[in-house]
This record gives sequence, structure tokens and C-alpha cells, in this order.
Amino acid sequence: MTKYVYDFAEGNRDLKELLGSKGANLAEMSNLGLPVPPGFTITTEACRAYLASGEQPPKLAGEISEHLDGLQQAMGKRLGDPADPLLVSVRSGAAASMPGMMETVLNVGLNDDSVDGLARVSGDDRFAADSYRRLIQMFGKTVLGIAGEHFDDAFEQVKRDSGTADDLDLDTGDMRRMVEVYKGVVREHAGRDFPQEPAEQLELTVRAVFDSWNSPRAITYRRQERIPADLGTAVSVVSMVFGNLGSDSGTGVAFTRDPGSGEQGIYGDYLPNAQGEDVVAGIRNTLPLHRLEEFDKASYDQLLEIMATLERHYLDLCDIEFTIERGTLWMLQTRVGKRTAAAAFTVAMQLVDEGLIDMDEALRRVTGAQLAQLMFPRFDRDAEAELLTTGTNASPGAASGQVVFDSATAMRHAAAGRGVILVRRETSADDLDGMIAARGVLTSRGGRTSHAAVVARGMGKTCVCGADELEIDVHERRISGPGGVEVAEGDVLSVDGSTGEVFLGEVPVVASPVVEYFEGRLDPAGDRADGLVRSVHAVMSHADRRRVLRVRVNADTGDDSQRARRFGAEGIGLCRTEHMFLGDRRHHVERLVLAETDSERQQALDALLPLQRDDFLEVFGAMDGLPVTIRLLDPPLHEFLPDYTELSVRVALAEERGEQPGADAELLDAVRRLHETNPMLGLRGVRLGIVVPGLFAMQVRAIAQAVATLRERGGDVHPEIMVPLVGTVQELQTISDEIDAVLAEESQASGVSLDAEIGTMIELPRAALTAGQIAEAAQFFSFGTNDLTQTTWGFSRDDVEGLFFASYLERGVFGVSPFESIDREGVGRLVRLAVQEGRATRPDLTLGICGEHGGDPDSVHFFHEVGLDYVSCSPFRIPVARLEAGRATVLD
Amino acid sequence: MTKYVYDFAEGNRDLKELLGSKGANLAEMSNLGLPVPPGFTITTEACRAYLASGEQPPKLAGEISEHLDGLQQAMGKRLGDPADPLLVSVRSGAAASMPGMMETVLNVGLNDDSVDGLARVSGDDRFAADSYRRLIQMFGKTVLGIAGEHFDDAFEQVKRDSGTADDLDLDTGDMRRMVEVYKGVVREHAGRDFPQEPAEQLELTVRAVFDSWNSPRAITYRRQERIPADLGTAVSVVSMVFGNLGSDSGTGVAFTRDPGSGEQGIYGDYLPNAQGEDVVAGIRNTLPLHRLEEFDKASYDQLLEIMATLERHYLDLCDIEFTIERGTLWMLQTRVGKRTAAAAFTVAMQLVDEGLIDMDEALRRVTGAQLAQLMFPRFDRDAEAELLTTGTNASPGAASGQVVFDSATAMRHAAAGRGVILVRRETSADDLDGMIAARGVLTSRGGRTSHAAVVARGMGKTCVCGADELEIDVHERRISGPGGVEVAEGDVLSVDGSTGEVFLGEVPVVASPVVEYFEGRLDPAGDRADGLVRSVHAVMSHADRRRVLRVRVNADTGDDSQRARRFGAEGIGLCRTEHMFLGDRRHHVERLVLAETDSERQQALDALLPLQRDDFLEVFGAMDGLPVTIRLLDPPLHEFLPDYTELSVRVALAEERGEQPGADAELLDAVRRLHETNPMLGLRGVRLGIVVPGLFAMQVRAIAQAVATLRERGGDVHPEIMVPLVGTVQELQTISDEIDAVLAEESQASGVSLDAEIGTMIELPRAALTAGQIAEAAQFFSFGTNDLTQTTWGFSRDDVEGLFFASYLERGVFGVSPFESIDREGVGRLVRLAVQEGRATRPDLTLGICGEHGGDPDSVHFFHEVGLDYVSCSPFRIPVARLEAGRATVLD
Repeated sequence: MTKYVYDFAEGNRDLKELLGSKGANLAEMSNLGLPVPPGFTITTEACRAYLASGEQPPKLAGEISEHLDGLQQAMGKRLGDPADPLLVSVRSGAAASMPGMMETVLNVGLNDDSVDGLARVSGDDRFAADSYRRLIQMFGKTVLGIAGEHFDDAFEQVKRDSGTADDLDLDTGDMRRMVEVYKGVVREHAGRDFPQEPAEQLELTVRAVFDSWNSPRAITYRRQERIPADLGTAVSVVSMVFGNLGSDSGTGVAFTRDPGSGEQGIYGDYLPNAQGEDVVAGIRNTLPLHRLEEFDKASYDQLLEIMATLERHYLDLCDIEFTIERGTLWMLQTRVGKRTAAAAFTVAMQLVDEGLIDMDEALRRVTGAQLAQLMFPRFDRDAEAELLTTGTNASPGAASGQVVFDSATAMRHAAAGRGVILVRRETSADDLDGMIAARGVLTSRGGRTSHAAVVARGMGKTCVCGADELEIDVHERRISGPGGVEVAEGDVLSVDGSTGEVFLGEVPVVASPVVEYFEGRLDPAGDRADGLVRSVHAVMSHADRRRVLRVRVNADTGDDSQRARRFGAEGIGLCRTEHMFLGDRRHHVERLVLAETDSERQQALDALLPLQRDDFLEVFGAMDGLPVTIRLLDPPLHEFLPDYTELSVRVALAEERGEQPGADAELLDAVRRLHETNPMLGLRGVRLGIVVPGLFAMQVRAIAQAVATLRERGGDVHPEIMVPLVGTVQELQTISDEIDAVLAEESQASGVSLDAEIGTMIELPRAALTAGQIAEAAQFFSFGTNDLTQTTWGFSRDDVEGLFFASYLERGVFGVSPFESIDREGVGRLVRLAVQEGRATRPDLTLGICGEHGGDPDSVHFFHEVGLDYVSCSPFRIPVARLEAGRATVLD
Repeated sequence: MTKYVYDFAEGNRDLKELLGSKGANLAEMSNLGLPVPPGFTITTEACRAYLASGEQPPKLAGEISEHLDGLQQAMGKRLGDPADPLLVSVRSGAAASMPGMMETVLNVGLNDDSVDGLARVSGDDRFAADSYRRLIQMFGKTVLGIAGEHFDDAFEQVKRDSGTADDLDLDTGDMRRMVEVYKGVVREHAGRDFPQEPAEQLELTVRAVFDSWNSPRAITYRRQERIPADLGTAVSVVSMVFGNLGSDSGTGVAFTRDPGSGEQGIYGDYLPNAQGEDVVAGIRNTLPLHRLEEFDKASYDQLLEIMATLERHYLDLCDIEFTIERGTLWMLQTRVGKRTAAAAFTVAMQLVDEGLIDMDEALRRVTGAQLAQLMFPRFDRDAEAELLTTGTNASPGAASGQVVFDSATAMRHAAAGRGVILVRRETSADDLDGMIAARGVLTSRGGRTSHAAVVARGMGKTCVCGADELEIDVHERRISGPGGVEVAEGDVLSVDGSTGEVFLGEVPVVASPVVEYFEGRLDPAGDRADGLVRSVHAVMSHADRRRVLRVRVNADTGDDSQRARRFGAEGIGLCRTEHMFLGDRRHHVERLVLAETDSERQQALDALLPLQRDDFLEVFGAMDGLPVTIRLLDPPLHEFLPDYTELSVRVALAEERGEQPGADAELLDAVRRLHETNPMLGLRGVRLGIVVPGLFAMQVRAIAQAVATLRERGGDVHPEIMVPLVGTVQELQTISDEIDAVLAEESQASGVSLDAEIGTMIELPRAALTAGQIAEAAQFFSFGTNDLTQTTWGFSRDDVEGLFFASYLERGVFGVSPFESIDREGVGRLVRLAVQEGRATRPDLTLGICGEHGGDPDSVHFFHEVGLDYVSCSPFRIPVARLEAGRATVLD
């Protein structure tokens, strides 16, 4: 039978899903013998049942009342007892952290009678009345849905009536009047009296906490943080303790070590004679925690001991909330503490050094996202910088530039070589060009799923959004900031996309020491290395030892290849050849396209051959000893030609002016002939190889000649030739025959044995669906998850990301862009199927992935899980991929 | 153990795959007790083993020799016996008919000695020498690969030397000289002597027949006819019988009934004193078969009796080949006869009437392709028409028009309202516009897989290709035909894409009586109905009784809907709403796109509402009592706006001329903003519905109001609202909530209960892959196999069909365009998966298909097999779909 209520003694920290994080940890501390006020927790399962049916489950009321009886016995007090009332807090708490998103009601159990009992027992009439007034206010807002402003107005009225300016000056009489006025507010706005019956207070409060799971702000928060909508919240009912009963009382929060740097020490704040909500509200200034020693050495010593106990028990940095009621310490909450990226690494390694955890556990404690944060350049913290405001850290990085307010200006300045920051209230599809041109983007509206945030992250562009202290006037071309600061177009701002900070003027940027380390410019054992670099080095080394996935790089040049090797690349997973046809070489492609005879076409290809050979010599040379996957030409040929519309306008204008359009006219014919309505779905990849005679043969010949040259020099070259956009095994077989023939010819000519693996991209749904057949002709598969995502979902990233992703994320259609993190249910299902059926055909098939997902933490775990051999990603993402590949192993 | 050789007595007609069609039917006739010359058949399996290894399987020689021994015993003769030699023919024969594609060698067993024995036994020296000369020639060409012209030259030389003009005047001495000269040709061109050893002759001939499976013309034929490449051919070794032993001998071919009309009677040809090859070569004029009665009444009567036996046995029209050797009748071949589309229907129904087959079998005997042929308009056979030439019937239909030689001219004439026939040697991507503009296409090169053929079929455009008697000179703009006929640009030609015929001048077109019947204008029981119409009616009625699949129509207007109902549509499977936004209504879409405020946008939508309501009133009205699936707007909005490039040129020119571009400039901004690189993968379908507020709501409101109006009038309306391009259930859920809300509002307003089924297209791979989830929000699925094919393969039909399909078909990458017939392995796998997982979620899910595959015979069988509820196709394809749906049931 389902059990809906757990005493603290019945729970433990492993029951987070059921008891919420708060409830589970209260139970855990309670069982550790730490001083936790007695209480019980109503499960998330009860909440889910309530939300599904709109009714509390039939058994729930009985179970609550049973546990309440137990609590009353334990405390020797009864809810609502006019002589010595038990008071409880009713606290929400989900398995995932949702700070401030759901409701909590304190002091449940007070009514017109028991308030006197509380006054008597506490010996503090004002305190008792104040407590009652707080209950009515919280209950009114939370349970009865009365707007807070009605209570605020009433509060101000009473203050005015009593002639006091400061809340603390309100006396017991004022507080008692406040209680009456508040009861009037309830009557007026809720159409009922404030319930005097404590059982009814409790029942309605529990219900309200359940309901708060589906408050609009909770829903929005869950969407942003990718928290599933169907978890529900637990509700903890805890005996009240009071930190506001005099100078021997107080409340505080603390970390067991520094959550910023990870260093050991006493980090926390203490507020004497106050309740927790006062600390959160920030009304009064807190004291550093070590000052507690002065007020109450016994409690202080006890607290330090508890903190040590918790660290030893949780084997991690914890944060805690506590209250001291008249010299007695009570623990109200603990959890594994949030920390900065740097602290994550240093704390993990400290715990290893202290023998508390092993290296596998250290690896579990850090994430690729944290590592990526440590790799972004940052503003120099030592530089003088004037903070203008702080918004949402929407897309990391640090950028300075002149303020502009529209795309056209952004593009004009950028073209003139000036760095700009595009500033808009919010962005739309119209601003895409400006975002591309800008170094950074700043908006005053929208959160992490706003258009600006989504698009900037997609572009890897620094962005701070939702900086709502700024008034942005695009017509007057001016920003008004807090404190009357005015920023005009052309003024310089600096935005930190990692912290959300916006500075006036230019702030110097410093390189990341972690990147210096990865690049080999900072010796982790040397003097210049700090604890962070040493920790990163230790964790990375362990990740490399543990990971099963190899990590390759997507690189097209010798320089990129060399850099990638330093970052730990174990080969090239994708060397695109299209970049090799840009610049001056476009001219050869034009000749190829304009060729009217076979011999003209062959001449154009012949001219390209030595250039391509040099390209490959450079890349193979840089990757000596490691595999290099060369992808044969993929994009449609017209991508190398001028834009159809621009050229049409140019030719039309020339004709209008009576000029000879000449070469342009000839080119326009070719461009028109090759123009495609949907080039992504057009004549490209293997189709091009089949339809344009000699094109792939030229590329293969260039590869073969480069390999022959290097092997003659003693080089250790491992070429892999990859055919793009294959949809059926016949395509691959056709090209594969041609490749074999060219390799045989070149082997013959050079006298060097020229073996090369031949394989294909799996980037079309049909390739995945027929992978069993395709594997007959392929020695390796490389999943092209960018294109596979585009065709599986039927959208082109270029076209739709800016136009509708923001609104999809906002409405929760996506949890995360499928271009950022692999869509496991759709695209991932195809990947899994192709892995299984490809390996069934050819057990030694090599399997990799070269889409951008190769550097995304979640996706790396997925690729580990489905059993790929390697991931390939951009140079900068290699450390992240290495780390996450290691984590995937230890989390498996 | 594998058995490679079968005596005729060991085989039967069910072993076609193994013995080839010829071998299996010889065995069948033999076992029926019909007079078949003794022989045996070497299996296709032996051929496959030989082709795979390049060597005859080890056991084969032994088995052949064993069966040859048996044959020699049965005949009482021995191969090569100088006294009375056994001669055999060695005949190719695959399971699928490949007429004339592979090799046959006659008279094997003759050599310098046995030729005398043959002369003695036949009493005809000239015959014996002629037989030997024929063997050397056939063996030389087929087995030794000597070009036929060398034998032809030698033949002419001997004729000149002997001073004779006519072959028949060559005497025995000439024939003997010919033998010597031919042996010299062999020695010279093959570098070896003609083999005298009969066993060697036989072995080499068998090998040559195996090899002929992979001759270039056989490969090409198989590709065109979609015959798998790995079947291989069987080889039948048959005792020779001779029809050329005098006037009591002869040879002939016959059908058991008229293969043109299906009518019963004696249909065949007879040639006295001749061998089969003479009939095929067409050197001498044949006699109608009934004349045989005059020469040899006994054989004639025996033949008629055999033909009746065969029809009763095969229960179908058969064709036969026979030889009479000195008054003895021998059956050399039989098979189920090819017939015209019309005969297929009439023969099937005759056989039913004769009680030989039942209606299910009649249904198996006809095809949708045959029915489709009967539905095309045809040239009036009674009209006088001068045949210019006959090419390949590449895309059916009948079209007359002025000859043009290039796209530009075609487009100019078409714009002026003149019908044109585009004439090219062959077509390429450059000719696409011209093909669109033309009524028909004619080329002098290329077969059924040429660019012209593939593209024309894709467009449904009449096309004759490969008319190689025509010399097409596009520069001189002139066609030279056979017999010196000249056709100039502007002259009128008529092309019949169903027969391949090309006529000079305009030929009147007559409607198909079958279409008249389907349209209800021709009563199948009435006087005007001929046997064909009565047969079609009977077969269609049975198909309707048997089929499980329902057939709906893709129709957007009341007229189309009414026509479709007459053709048998059982509802609308796809009513596209985009066609409703063309013409004058584009203006409203422009307003919608240019709207700068919510209220401007709403005004544009409000203006569209009554127009849409009228559209739906018409369609629902025409389909009273039947379901109508309305698809909400699918294409990107910019499809309703002017072309980006054209507009850019127009605005640039206006600016250049100093004119005010005015509205164009404003529109250009919108077009530029909405311009997409890959519109097929852009902001369309459900994405549009989510991003453009009010758009889908307007459409749903129009549907609701139309339904309310009709229901108030007593109409029986079954609306189904279909959301296009869904990739994830969240999209469908979002729109579905909106639809429910609008329906509820309109129900309230009208007082009419407005239920409607809500469902979605499955047209993206991801929709199929997550169909189990999507079915939670969908009451029906309709597979959009056009888009699903495009995204699964990653090609856009518009872009690639003209550019590379021809070369893919030519190279065998495709057997058939996946847009014509469903790709079972890729797209089909997704369909199957979505059916299974959709039904698992929602057992009563309605499943249909509305892509063009809905009218394709092969695809209809697939949809039956996977268990869809209905197919939906264009009005004209409905009868084909009904017929094939019935066939799918009886063939199941």
C-alpha cells in the first residue's frame, strides 16, 4: 500500500525523489543525530496524485493526522493549544532545486486563542502577535490567493496610524491591531474568515503547496532549467523554532568550504535575533559567521562540529541553514552546496587529497559545462571596471565594443573593422545580421530562452539578456541605466556573458589559465600553476584513463590540426574539403561549372589537383601517426558561385545602363541553371560525385599522392576517405569502386602501397534505416548529426533557428535545441538503430560522430551509451569531450 | 546436394525460378503428354554459381554428361555420330521474359563427319551443309565473339563467286564452300579452329549462354524492366527438330486467343519449310495460321487440340511456338501470353464466363497499370494520320502541338496560348522550363530511364523518347525523318506516349470509354458499352467487394470532389488549403505578412474568414455523408509573395531609373525578411501555426462555421482537421488545444455541436520515429509520403529529379524513382514503424496516406500490407487505387 507520509526518522537522503531534496536531507540529518526540529514529510507521490485528480488521495488526511499526533506527542505540545501551542512550518521541496519558486507557510497553528499561549510561553507578547500577523499574511497570500499589496497597504496604514517610521518601532499594540486589520483584509478579499481551526489551516496549506507546483513562475522556471513537469513537490511539516526570541537567538546560513574557490574555512553569515526569512529578504545586514563565536561559543563550536560531520558524511561541500533559539542550535536544512566551476574542480581534488573520495568520484563531481566555463576568456578582475548592471548570463564569453542599436549600423561598423555590441530591448529575426556582425549582444528583456539568448548561444556569441534595469531607447539611440547613467550610440560597453555583468567602457580581457594549460603553455607541475590548473590536470588525466570513447577533432588545416593535437585530439574525425575551394580557388570551380566540354572540365580539375594535394600534405603531416578522415566535397557547386539574386540585380543594372555584362551574364546562366530551391536537399555530396565526372577522382588522387609523398618520407599516415550524403548502398558502392580504381592507379604510379579505409557519413534518415546494407560497402560510419537532425526534424538550421526556436523553447515544445544536444527520441533512435544494424553486418565497423553534438556533454554520454568508438568536435571542445567521455564511463 | 540439371520429366511450371520460364514450360508440356522434343535444363543456380566464381560448378559437367547420355538413349542417336548424329539446340531462358536479350545456338553436334550422317539421314545434302554453316556462324558469333559482319561478308563473297543473287539459289556445293569459308573466318578472327568435338561445342556454348546474362544489352534491358540483376539464366538443351526438311515441314507461332482484344479464335502465323529463326528474322512472309489446315490437316487439328489443352491447363491465354518435321508436330515453347491492357480485362472475364477461373483470379490477372493505360485519352484510330516514326513509349498520353527546339521558344509559344511539342535530341536540366511549357516531349535518344522519360513521367507529361529514326538538328531547327520527310519548327506533330507513335500533323483525340464509364456517362449494361467496358465494370465491382483499403481523394474544390465521388472516392483524404490563398487572395496574405500590429494582422485574417468558410461549404457539401480531411495551411507564407530575385531586380531597376519603387520596396523588405535558404525545411506547417497568432484559429473557425451551417440544413458532415509537419507531440498538443477552444466557442455561438477529429500528417522522419507519443494527441495519422520521401532521402523533388534521377536510374542506383513507388526499405520502414507504434498507443487510430504514392499500384499493395485504413490520391488515380486495393486482398 502506498505510504504518503514519512517521519524524519523513516526517511534518508536516498529518498529525494519521494521526499524532495529538503525532506530527504532533514531525515538524513535527523538520523545522524543532529539537532533537527521534529517533523514529517508528505511525499511527491501524494502531490502527483492530487495534481492528477484535483483531490487529495483518500488516505492522505488520515496519515497526516497520525503523524501529527506522533509529532505532538514528541513535542509534548498540541497544535492550537491555548496554553502552550505547537507551531509548524509547512515547506515545499522538490527533488530538483527550484529556489523560491514554490510556497512555504510558517507559524501554522496560531489562532486567536493560541497566540496568547505563545505569548505566555515565549514571554514576549509582541513576538506572539507578530508571529500571528505573519501567519495571516502568508496564509492569505499563499493559500487564499490574496494579492500581497493589500497586506502591504494595510501594514503601511497601521504604521501611519501609529506614527512610526521604522517597523521595529511598532509595539505590541500595533502588532495586535495589525492582526485585526489583516483578518479584515482576508475577509474582504477572500470572502471568508481566516480559519481558526489549526487542522484546517494545515490541510489548506498543504493543498496550496501542492498547487504551487503548477504556478506560472514554477512552470517557466522548470522549462528553463529542463526540470520534468511531472515530478511534483513534497511538503515538509516541521516544528517551528524561533531565532527572533532575543539576543540569545539568531539564524544563519553557511558553507562547509568556500563555494567560490573551494578553499577550506568558515564561510557563512549570521543574523542575531532574526528569522530565516529576514536573512533571505536582505532587510538587515548580516554578520560574518565567525562572529557567532563572540555571542554564543557553545553553539558556534557545535556548528563547526556539525559542519565537519556533514562533510564527512556527504563527502562534499555542503551548505546549511540553522537557527539558534535561546541558545539551542537547530539545523533547518542542508544540501550539497552549489559552487562555481573553479570550485567544483578544486573541491573535488581537495576531497581526494583528504582521502574522502576517489578519483572516479572526483570525475563525477565536475562537468564539461563547468570546464567550458573555465575556458572562456574573461575580463581582468584586477582591472578597474565600472559595473553598469547585471542581467542574465545567456551565452558565455567576454566582449567589448561600441554600442549600436540596429543591424544596419552593426554591419556598417563591423565592415569598417570596429567591434560593436548590439543593444536591443529584445531581438527578432530582423536582428540576425546584426547579431552576426556584433561581438556581443545585450538586451533588456527576456530570459535564457529568449530569441537573443537562443540565437547567440547557437552562434557562440557572447550575450547578456534581460538586463531590466536598463531603459533602451532605440529611436533616441540611448540607454538609461541605474543611477541616471546614460550611454549613447558609439559609447563603449563590455559584457560578460558568463556572469551577466555589463561594464562601462572597455575592460581588458585575460586568457583562461586552463586554456594556457591545455595549450601546453602552462606546466601544471610548475610554479605558475595554481590549485585550479593542478586540479583540472589531475581530473583530465583521470578522465583520459577512464574513457572508452576516443576524441577526434573537426579540422581542415594544418594549424587547426596542430592546436587540436595539443588539446588532446586523437586524430581528425572530419576534414572538410569545401573550405579548400574558397578564396582564389573559387575561380577553378567557376571554370568547372562553366566547362562546356569534357576536356575543359578536366582542365579545371587538373588545376585543382596540386592545390588539393598540398592541402592534404599539410593536414596529414600535422596528424602523423593518427587517423585522418577526409570528407569528399559536400556542398552544391553553386555555393562557390556568386549569389543568384545579387548577380541578377547586377546583370539587370548593367543592361539597363547599356553596359556589357560580359562574364557576369555567362556566369548568371550557370548560376541560374544550378540554382536550387532547397540547396540542402539538392545536388550535393555523393550525388555530385556521381553526376560530375572526375570530381571525386581528383580529390582521391590528391589524397593518394599526398599519402605516397609522406610515406616515402617515412611518415605514418592513416587516411580514411569519407563519402558524404549517402542514402543507399548503391551510391557508396559506385563511388567506392571509383576510389579503389584511383588508389590502384596511384599505387602503381608511385610504387607506394596506398591503402585507405573507405566509409560514409550517416546523415540522412535513410542511411540510418538501411545501415545494415550500407555497412557492406563501408569500413566506417561517421554520424553527421547536424544534417541528420535537420532531415529527421525537417528543418534547416539556417532558416528556422532564428525564426521559431525561441518561441518553441518558450512554449516548452523543446526542452533544449536539438542542434545543441542530441534528440534522443528521434535522431538518437536512428543513431542507435544504425549502430546495431551496421555492426550486425560488419562487427569491426568503426563508428564515430562528427556533428557539433560531438562536443556537447549530454550528447557525449549518449554516444558512449550507444557504443560509438569516437566523437569528433571543434578544437576548443576537445577537453570538454574528453572529460565527459571519462565521466560517461564512471557514471555508466 | 544441389542438383544442377533437370530432365524435362523432372521439372514443372512452378520451377520457373530454377529452370527459367522456357525450361519450366517445356517440362510442363512434356508432362502433359504433349509432343516436346526430349531434352533437359541446366538451372539458374548453376548460372549464378558460374557468374559468381567465373568457373562452372565442379559437379555440373558430370550432371550434363549424365543427362546427355539419357537423352542419347531416349533418341537412339549420339552427338557427333557420323552415321546418324543427334543434334541439340542450346537455349537461354530466364525466369523473367527478356526476349532476344540472350543467346541461343542451334545444331550443336555437327562437325566435318556428322554432317555427312545428317545428309544421309535427312536425304538432303544441301540441308545438312546449310545446318553446319549455320552452326559455325552462330557458334562463331555467340561463343567465340566474332563480329557478325565477318560472316556476312563471307556469305556475300560466296554468293558473288557462285554468281547467284538469291540465297535460295545457292546449291549444295555453294553451301559446302560456305562451310569452309566460315571455318576460315573462325580461324582468322578467333585464332583457333572450329571445335570438332561435340562435347566441347556443348560445354563452350553453355558457358557462352551463362555469360550472355551479363551482356551490356541484357544489363540495360534488365534495368529498364526492373528485373533483378542476380537471377541468372537457365539453359535448355533440346533435341533439334527441323521445319526446313521440305513442304511437309514448317514452323509457326500462335496465340490461344487474340492478344489485342482478347477475343476467341485462331491467331497465329505459319511458315512452310522453314526454321523458327526465319520467322523471327522476318525474311519471308508468313501465312495466317488457319492456312495450315490446307497443308497438313492432321497437324492442324492436333495443334488446335493442344491449344485448347494448354488454355484449360494454364487457365489463361497462351502463346506457343511449334515446328512440323515431315508431318510430325513438335511443341518448342509455350507461356502465358503477353496481351494489351484491353485484352487483359476481356480475357479475364471470358475465362470467368467459361468457368475456368473465378472472380478473385480475374482480379489477379489485371493490373492498375493496365487500367491506367485504358484511361488515357488516345488518338482517334479512325482518323487519317500519317505515322512519322515510332519511338519508346516513355510517358503515356496523347498530345499535338507545334514543334519547338528550345525552352525559351516553348515558353514564349505557351505563354501565347499555343500548344507546343518540345523536340530535343536528349533533354537536360536546362530543358525543364520547356518541358513544363510543352504539351509533349519528343527525343531521338535515350530509353525509358533517360532524363526526358524520367522527368516527363514525374510531371505526368506525354513523352516519346529514343525515336532514333529522326535526325534532330536544333541549330537548323529541323527534323529529318525516314523517307526524306522534313519537319520544321512550327510544323505540327502528334505524339502518342502510350504507343511511342509520332504522327505528322494534328490527330484528333478521343476520350477513353473507360473514363466515360467511370464518370457515369456510359452505362456498362447499356448498348453503347463494349466488352471492354463490361469487363472493367465486372472486375472493378469485384475489387470493391474484396478490398480492405478504403480509397479517398486529394481534392481542394467542390468540382474535384464531385468528380472524385463519381470515380468512387469514399471521402477526401487531403483537402489542401494553400490553393485557397492564391489569385486575388494573395493580397490578403500580403496584408498578413506586412501587418505591423496585432490588429492589422487580425484584420487581414478577418477578411479571409468568410472566403475560407465558403471554400469549406463547397467541399463539405460535395462530400456529404463522407469524411473530409482538411489540412491547415502548410507552405511558408513567402510562397504567396513575389519571387525574391525578381522583386530585387524590379526594385533595383526602379531605383536606377529614379522611380519610386513604392509598394514594391516595402514588399521587398518583407520578402527579404521571410526569404529562406531551404523553404521546404523552413517556417511552414505547424510551425507557422504556432508562430503566427490567429492563423490556424481563423481556418478552424471557418471550418466550424461551415459545418454549423450545413448541419443546420440537415447535412451530414464529417470534418477531420489535420495539422501538417508535426515533428513532436508537443506541437500537435499546442495546436490541438487551440482547435478545441475555437470549436467550443463556435459551438457556443451557433448552438450546433461541433465535433471534429483532430489528427496529423506523418511526413517527417521524427514524426514516424515518435509516432507512439504523437498518437496520444492524434485521432488519425495521414502519411505524407511525398515529404517523408524528401526528408528521409534528404532530397527535394523540385531540385534533384531533373538533375540526377536519370543518371541514378541509368546506373541502377534506383530501380524506380522513390517518388513514383514507395521506397519500402527506407520510407516504408518508417511507415511500418509508425503504424505499429501509433496503434499500440491508440488502437482505434485511423491511418491513411495522402502522398502521390496513394495511386501507385506497388505502393497500394504496401499500404495494404502494413494495414492502413485508406489511401488517398488524385481523382484520376482513384480507379487504379480501387483496383489495386482489391488485388492486394486477393494476392495477400
